[in-house]
Amino acid sequence: MATLWSKRYAQRTGRVSSSTIRELLKLTEKGDVISFAGGLPAPEVFPVAEFQTACHKVLEEMGPKALQYGTTEGYRPLREMIVRHMARYKINVSVDNVLITAGSQQALDLIGKLLINPGDRLLVEEPTYLGALQAFNMYQAEYVTVPIDDDGLRTDLLEEALRAGPKFMYILPNFQNPGGVTLSLSRRMELIALAERYGVPIIEDDPYGQLRYEGEHIKPLVVLDSERPGCDDGGRYSGNVIYLSTFSKTLAPGLRLGWVVAPEEVISKLVQLKQGTDLHTSTFTQIVAYEVARGGFLDKHVRKIRQVYRERRDVMLAALERYFPPGVRWTHPQGGLFLWVTLPEWVNTTQILPHAIEEKVAYVPGTDFFASGGGYNTMRLNFSNARPEMIEEGIRRLGRVLATQLEAEKQVA
Amino acid sequence: MATLWSKRYAQRTGRVSSSTIRELLKLTEKGDVISFAGGLPAPEVFPVAEFQTACHKVLEEMGPKALQYGTTEGYRPLREMIVRHMARYKINVSVDNVLITAGSQQALDLIGKLLINPGDRLLVEEPTYLGALQAFNMYQAEYVTVPIDDDGLRTDLLEEALRAGPKFMYILPNFQNPGGVTLSLSRRMELIALAERYGVPIIEDDPYGQLRYEGEHIKPLVVLDSERPGCDDGGRYSGNVIYLSTFSKTLAPGLRLGWVVAPEEVISKLVQLKQGTDLHTSTFTQIVAYEVARGGFLDKHVRKIRQVYRERRDVMLAALERYFPPGVRWTHPQGGLFLWVTLPEWVNTTQILPHAIEEKVAYVPGTDFFASGGGYNTMRLNFSNARPEMIEEGIRRLGRVLATQLEAEKQVA
Repeated sequence: MATLWSKRYAQRTGRVSSSTIRELLKLTEKGDVISFAGGLPAPEVFPVAEFQTACHKVLEEMGPKALQYGTTEGYRPLREMIVRHMARYKINVSVDNVLITAGSQQALDLIGKLLINPGDRLLVEEPTYLGALQAFNMYQAEYVTVPIDDDGLRTDLLEEALRAGPKFMYILPNFQNPGGVTLSLSRRMELIALAERYGVPIIEDDPYGQLRYEGEHIKPLVVLDSERPGCDDGGRYSGNVIYLSTFSKTLAPGLRLGWVVAPEEVISKLVQLKQGTDLHTSTFTQIVAYEVARGGFLDKHVRKIRQVYRERRDVMLAALERYFPPGVRWTHPQGGLFLWVTLPEWVNTTQILPHAIEEKVAYVPGTDFFASGGGYNTMRLNFSNARPEMIEEGIRRLGRVLATQLEAEKQVA
Repeated sequence: MATLWSKRYAQRTGRVSSSTIRELLKLTEKGDVISFAGGLPAPEVFPVAEFQTACHKVLEEMGPKALQYGTTEGYRPLREMIVRHMARYKINVSVDNVLITAGSQQALDLIGKLLINPGDRLLVEEPTYLGALQAFNMYQAEYVTVPIDDDGLRTDLLEEALRAGPKFMYILPNFQNPGGVTLSLSRRMELIALAERYGVPIIEDDPYGQLRYEGEHIKPLVVLDSERPGCDDGGRYSGNVIYLSTFSKTLAPGLRLGWVVAPEEVISKLVQLKQGTDLHTSTFTQIVAYEVARGGFLDKHVRKIRQVYRERRDVMLAALERYFPPGVRWTHPQGGLFLWVTLPEWVNTTQILPHAIEEKVAYVPGTDFFASGGGYNTMRLNFSNARPEMIEEGIRRLGRVLATQLEAEKQVA
């Protein structure tokens, strides 16, 4: 049906394409496909009983307030809880530095709206979170990319990229999506020093920070920046790093609750932008999440999630060793939800995907995570969603598919 | 605290200013101010008990699904319910024409993202919904305005405005926010005919359509457009009108649930934009809202709301007659949440506001609702939120303030 609309689309929409992840999710929703494609938490660990209790209490004690319009900044007790939570990680901010968003994804959209003029360059990791590229693309960003390796962002290549004059850097230091790698402490310090030298601020995206399965916690960039020698208030929030996190991986993604930590002046601008975007985040989900999380429950629950996901990661790593053909490498994530697979350079994972789905197993081809193209021989695997026996079976299937494809392509070559 | 951010704000943020409504809401939140400023539903009619039952059932029967990520389009049974609901108003669409949004406000933001290039002209009513201007301003829209009177948009002035080549028209036909007026059937037909002649599509924003307290339902623009003679499929959705509505005024605004009806190609673009904006609307609130609304409850509940709001409107209209000084006019809304007051031209309602707040009563000065400036002698009054005795008392206070101010200014003049 021809309508008056399609010839009226704005220029910015020229760069919209449907997300491979989302289309795949649809494709593999039904039937017996074992999907490592999504980024879904394990639904069986959601604290359903605690949500029951919280919903009942909230509606009983403050039903009308929970169902009414709320402030754009977010539910104050929840923001105060976030302040206390972050103080334990030495992120020392006040409630006026915190804005509640509809998941971290909305924080990325609002940051794009606040900061990006068409043609502005952003410095991003290669590969990086696809959803961030989708958010920033809508504001017609351009990219300068810096590759990652097993220790995260290649800081030895950072200075050259900074000379391109990026407006800000977008960095995922912990168990990066999609790479699964963690930025080492020494590289974090190098990154902070270079950011200072070139005057380029940082968006630190940390959805998975609490989900560490081995090794020691490494200070977030926001903390390291506040501790740098030039910073007068040593240890107090310096404001050159905006920090994002979410309840999606620790409580439940269906709530759509994330948060931004930023200087007050930035928060107040973001609040104005959010007013025009959706007025505010659901009062009801905010108050219910506060009731579920408070009183130490969230900590207890995160310990449980860590246990479940660590086991799944280990099962996947062991299965990869067992079933994947030679010549294939993968990362060893210390936390988070994903690991990253690199095949021989002449292999194209997008072309292999239909064969995989035929064998009832799915993954995400890596190329979409590359802001400047490339990465055709890579894929992302999620290990949080499927149960251990499914992971084992899925990797077995995928190993078989890859072996067949590698063999076939070798013969053509 | 100086940071690296403020000099990096995007150009589009130059037009952001904090909403008077929001700032006022804060100012009048505490204490004994009777506020006619907000657009809040009456919290005492929220169906809290039904939410209790629904939350319990949803968590009991499908907890993990309700807390998990969902599809960007929205929860399918809710979309199907919306299709059935709209069919009763002769809006004949399929589930693929419906996208669930985080309130109507997000629909406005997504529409701006999809359609507006910087400098594009939009045709809006004068006055019009402030939140729409806030959403569209972020995409650097310009405006061509057409005044309203007691029968809504002045269609006798429309043709000249259409010659300015607006990208689309943004129209609130029912109980307009802020004017409280309703577009008559004959003007609706004129509007549709002119839209057709000039090839300019329409965004029809209808948050209050179900809240009619007197008079007969008038066909929505989306229906009239599908019935126009040139339209082949007479009666089937023509696609030249995008229709927006919400559960905020009928169920509860704290859920943040609205919807867009648009051609499939437009919905699929909006879905892609929404992916980058917030992935999807809360699964939990969608499923709970569906459970509350289904089985005829929403209809029953809307009848109750109509009764409560009709009484409050009548109390306010009677109080205005009794307490407002001569020379002041106001609209007589047939539905919705607002009425609109016009004072003598030499009066400035923004300057009077502090005096009103001193007397413990608040309203919204009208000028913010004018896309091209003006309207200094107008104000918007909400009659849904305060209880009848408070409305009476508040209008008494406001009448006294206005009488004093009018008298004082007259003496100066």
